[in-house]
Amino acid sequence: MKISLIVIGDEILLGQVIDSNAATIAKLVYQEGLQIYKKWTVADKSDEIQLALIESSQQSDVILMTGGLGPTKDDITKKSLADFLMRPLVFNTVQKDHLEKILKPRGIPVTEMQLHQCYIPDQTVLLDNQMGTALGMWIEQQGKIYVSMPGVPYEMEFIMKHSVIPKLRNYQAGNRIIHQTVFTVGLGETEIASRIEPLLINMPEHISIAYLPSQGQVKIRLTASGSDEENMQQELDEYIGIIQTELEASVIGIGETSLERELGKLLKEHHKSLATAESCTGGYLAHRITSIPGSSDYFLGSVVAYQNRIKEALLNVSNEILEAQGAVSEACVIEMVKGCCRKFNSDFAIATSGIAGPGGGSPDKPVGTVWIAYGSKTQIETKKFQFTRDRIRNIEASASFAMILFWKFLKSKEFLKVDN
Amino acid sequence: MKISLIVIGDEILLGQVIDSNAATIAKLVYQEGLQIYKKWTVADKSDEIQLALIESSQQSDVILMTGGLGPTKDDITKKSLADFLMRPLVFNTVQKDHLEKILKPRGIPVTEMQLHQCYIPDQTVLLDNQMGTALGMWIEQQGKIYVSMPGVPYEMEFIMKHSVIPKLRNYQAGNRIIHQTVFTVGLGETEIASRIEPLLINMPEHISIAYLPSQGQVKIRLTASGSDEENMQQELDEYIGIIQTELEASVIGIGETSLERELGKLLKEHHKSLATAESCTGGYLAHRITSIPGSSDYFLGSVVAYQNRIKEALLNVSNEILEAQGAVSEACVIEMVKGCCRKFNSDFAIATSGIAGPGGGSPDKPVGTVWIAYGSKTQIETKKFQFTRDRIRNIEASASFAMILFWKFLKSKEFLKVDN
Repeated sequence: MKISLIVIGDEILLGQVIDSNAATIAKLVYQEGLQIYKKWTVADKSDEIQLALIESSQQSDVILMTGGLGPTKDDITKKSLADFLMRPLVFNTVQKDHLEKILKPRGIPVTEMQLHQCYIPDQTVLLDNQMGTALGMWIEQQGKIYVSMPGVPYEMEFIMKHSVIPKLRNYQAGNRIIHQTVFTVGLGETEIASRIEPLLINMPEHISIAYLPSQGQVKIRLTASGSDEENMQQELDEYIGIIQTELEASVIGIGETSLERELGKLLKEHHKSLATAESCTGGYLAHRITSIPGSSDYFLGSVVAYQNRIKEALLNVSNEILEAQGAVSEACVIEMVKGCCRKFNSDFAIATSGIAGPGGGSPDKPVGTVWIAYGSKTQIETKKFQFTRDRIRNIEASASFAMILFWKFLKSKEFLKVDN
Repeated sequence: MKISLIVIGDEILLGQVIDSNAATIAKLVYQEGLQIYKKWTVADKSDEIQLALIESSQQSDVILMTGGLGPTKDDITKKSLADFLMRPLVFNTVQKDHLEKILKPRGIPVTEMQLHQCYIPDQTVLLDNQMGTALGMWIEQQGKIYVSMPGVPYEMEFIMKHSVIPKLRNYQAGNRIIHQTVFTVGLGETEIASRIEPLLINMPEHISIAYLPSQGQVKIRLTASGSDEENMQQELDEYIGIIQTELEASVIGIGETSLERELGKLLKEHHKSLATAESCTGGYLAHRITSIPGSSDYFLGSVVAYQNRIKEALLNVSNEILEAQGAVSEACVIEMVKGCCRKFNSDFAIATSGIAGPGGGSPDKPVGTVWIAYGSKTQIETKKFQFTRDRIRNIEASASFAMILFWKFLKSKEFLKVDN
């Protein structure tokens, strides 16, 4: 079953919005062992939508569409789909009842503009949307399935999860695609490739390898396709095992995981607590850590100290260090770790201080200079980085490398056994 | 000049990675008054890449490609492009010199795998990449331009900014597309539409309107296309003025802006300082605020208090309140604002406390219950929200609504004049 995706929206082609819907849809489809074959992103224009429908229906069996279903003037997807399928738009009372059910409790009257929403291509199966006014649409014609969903992320996600995925399951059969990923830190793509590829010479042709690098991390993904899922799973396990053994000290996890998730697992497993003291990361490190459900079990909190006097007042960094060496210094981040451990009474702390930019750089400490420290009250390690000239990238890289360094630090098992 | 984009990468179609490159490219192109006409996202497979090249070259003049240029096994873009253009791959010494220039200072030897990178389609103009080993490629054939760039975001961005955009400028002429955006908070899409569309009845056909809603915010975008840029700009200004006047109290800014940017402007203008006390947002609010360059001028810092004892110790929330009403209560966020203003000696503070989920909910306080407080030591306002069951969405919505509420609070001019 070949599945295509058509994303409709000027705002995406203009770069005003990052298209996160496509990733959400791809993940949901992938969990069913399916894969998005190809994606079109087109403007809010009827002829462009129809051209994408022509191309995608020639190349695939299921065409998922998102965007352009709503009460305002830029709603043209439905009309384009009806024209393409050569079906009339007819007034649909299911959509009208739904509209009233959503709006009445909020005391909002149904306007003429909103009644336009109730015109739906003939013989459409409407898909429930408990998150908004526009229902999803499921249309079958000449062996193809056309699905149209609103572009609002949580509305689209509701319809995908509750209607589209269950319905697709009924259609699915035959060829399976399965994946497994090894998540590494601290090694480059080329080094990994040169170490593992000689070990994978005998890997069968129906398994392929890909490398996905980002900020000190590389994900190595094996993909197998075929009909014998059990056998494919065994093969993947075997080759994943080979990769894991070769890269052992750098493997942070297997499968869909993240630095913050693996760090959390490690802390929870050993009943240790963590707090952060952040200058240049400005709360982003705490945000990454607290994005994990249950992080309150091991994460106590953070002090974001964006000015020197706050570093003194809340983290007990000495005025002498700030005067003599500045806030972006090894001595300062060491004091921040100590002060943070004390303030939160935590086992461990991570501290960041740097020049995120674009202003604030000097010849000595150019934009992108970042000091990171991590450890306990008694055992602290530090590292200096020279990142880029871009503010957001510096913040993200600082947080990623701070977690990588601290994860490696925790992994020295003897250390975890010692009580702090 | 019609510009297409082909994004290559299994990882995007699998949903493992959100495609931020497309938004970056679209923005850079848009700044030149150009627009991405259409985007294809395809798998790392030669026949899929070639099919996308056939489709896009039939429909556009410039084909930008990103992804699949690198030293490892999954590098097939170059081969597919060469096959499509029917050009041989020839060994290119410019690429080889560049490879050595990047790797030598790092003490990395040039491997056989990397030398493969030096085979480039015949008659290609190579584009400088100071961020990585793979140079960009610019190929002209039969009146079309083909550009291939690596998928690593900062490498792609470097090549776009330093080579592709300047070269495209030389080709550009004729039709212009211009946009302007009004950024509002606190109104729904339908309410806005019903208020402004009657005022825009006489808007000429070459100007179109679109609504981009998200978390309490709606961006209203007008797009004009034509050849007389000066006249179009005047027309846009006129209609933007009409919209702005009608929605005045809810307009946060004009053009490409954000809540955190407008909030920062307001604080800076009035020489006021802000700190945050965060529970459920876990540092994300501070991160949003500190993502703005120069935010250290008005933002002092944050206390992320992820446990009750930290709320007591660092923010002086009384134990009685925590015992009697819990951390997710109006009384608690009020104390957090007071404690935060005192701790940081700030003019203002914002506090959040809620149940982000997925665990921790109760019948009384289900997942998604969030209390927000904001103000000064002496004047504090609060609001309770009931968001969704999704953790990340709850964190993001809490931060957005906290900034919206605080922005509205600050806008009461008399308040800003009073010293705190």
